Amino acid sequence: MPTHTADRQYVESLVRQIVGRVAQASGIQSPPLAVKPELRVSISARHVHLTDAHVEQLFGKGHTLTPGKDLFQDGFYAAKETVMIVGPRKRMLPEVRVLGPTRSFSQVELALTDAISLGIQAPVRHSGKIQGTPGCVLVGPAGAVELSEGVIRAARHVHMSFEEAAYYGVENGDLMTLKVSSPDCSVSFDDLLVRADKAAKLEVHIDTDEGNACNLDAATSIELKPQGDCKCKGH
Amino acid sequence: MPTHTADRQYVESLVRQIVGRVAQASGIQSPPLAVKPELRVSISARHVHLTDAHVEQLFGKGHTLTPGKDLFQDGFYAAKETVMIVGPRKRMLPEVRVLGPTRSFSQVELALTDAISLGIQAPVRHSGKIQGTPGCVLVGPAGAVELSEGVIRAARHVHMSFEEAAYYGVENGDLMTLKVSSPDCSVSFDDLLVRADKAAKLEVHIDTDEGNACNLDAATSIELKPQGDCKCKGH
Repeated sequence: MPTHTADRQYVESLVRQIVGRVAQASGIQSPPLAVKPELRVSISARHVHLTDAHVEQLFGKGHTLTPGKDLFQDGFYAAKETVMIVGPRKRMLPEVRVLGPTRSFSQVELALTDAISLGIQAPVRHSGKIQGTPGCVLVGPAGAVELSEGVIRAARHVHMSFEEAAYYGVENGDLMTLKVSSPDCSVSFDDLLVRADKAAKLEVHIDTDEGNACNLDAATSIELKPQGDCKCKGH
Repeated sequence: MPTHTADRQYVESLVRQIVGRVAQASGIQSPPLAVKPELRVSISARHVHLTDAHVEQLFGKGHTLTPGKDLFQDGFYAAKETVMIVGPRKRMLPEVRVLGPTRSFSQVELALTDAISLGIQAPVRHSGKIQGTPGCVLVGPAGAVELSEGVIRAARHVHMSFEEAAYYGVENGDLMTLKVSSPDCSVSFDDLLVRADKAAKLEVHIDTDEGNACNLDAATSIELKPQGDCKCKGH
């Protein structure tokens, strides 16, 4: 029986993939999944994305990032490397994880609590939207980098495949609400940006302040729905 | 005209107070306010409540708390005194504010981010419900106190008068929802416990994680309503 179920799931998954490809190739919207996808909510602790050049400045000429733990999204990892972040008033966070692979610009993602402890006014921004954001100093074993911008509090978002987006009735760029039921501290997070991508897997990213506000580890249920999906809006 | 309005408001306020007193004296429920009360949301940073005996142990024989800044609720204040909180792995927070007046038991209120940084598993509890909670060491200029229990993450709550409770249609012990609209990070906080009291003034208390999760300083609107006050519940 388990084998039968597994085979059947495998065949269904293949069919769905093929149907998805045909639909995409012909410009038709992805069909929704037949079953509710498994919802994963991950807390992103403070971290840094670096350019190849900054990796060399911080860790030495010719250095490349050493993949440590794989992240849930395929191809992404927590590197073994960490950097010190120094704020304008010489306050610092000693060991902040670098995530890989490298990017075309460096970016520091902090929770607001981290930013306040560093004395940096980090605005809420979606990844990549760093124009006009404050900078900081990064220090590694081989040198330092002074970023003129790039310190943000990453806005909450949800990664998903096109099929998963179709299941929820949303598209890339839409907003959703994540309701976390947790003893004495339930929270509904609005403004969750949908990042739909062919290669993405369903995963909500919130920061440590958000994860702690709802005591995510103790949560008894989580629910994801399109924002404003409530007949009582305006009540 | 302004004087007339002021007089009228004054008379209305007097009438309401008198009506409230009569109603309370006769055991009738408080009448709701005629106008929407002003909603204040305060972020409680980590702090400590102490007994008289612990104040003496930490600050010296015969020492009493020195009131610093008055809090919004009448009779409460941030004292000039601070203590160091030391966690089980010798990690510490160097200057945590003491709030006054003293109480019959000592209690340490931390955000979950603070508790994690100290290595303390602080449960979400309402103030006073400290049975079975972890302890910590407090250090002051004159000595140290080892608390066997009393470290909590204070559960969110809202203080209000009986008239304000009547305005919202809630009673002491009910739960409410606070919706904070904030650019890219709006949040609805459920499980907000109503603490109605004759002497209380309308004020929501959330902790720093909660305040940072919704970037309260940047909020564009706040709304308080009874929990579950939505015809779509169950959708």
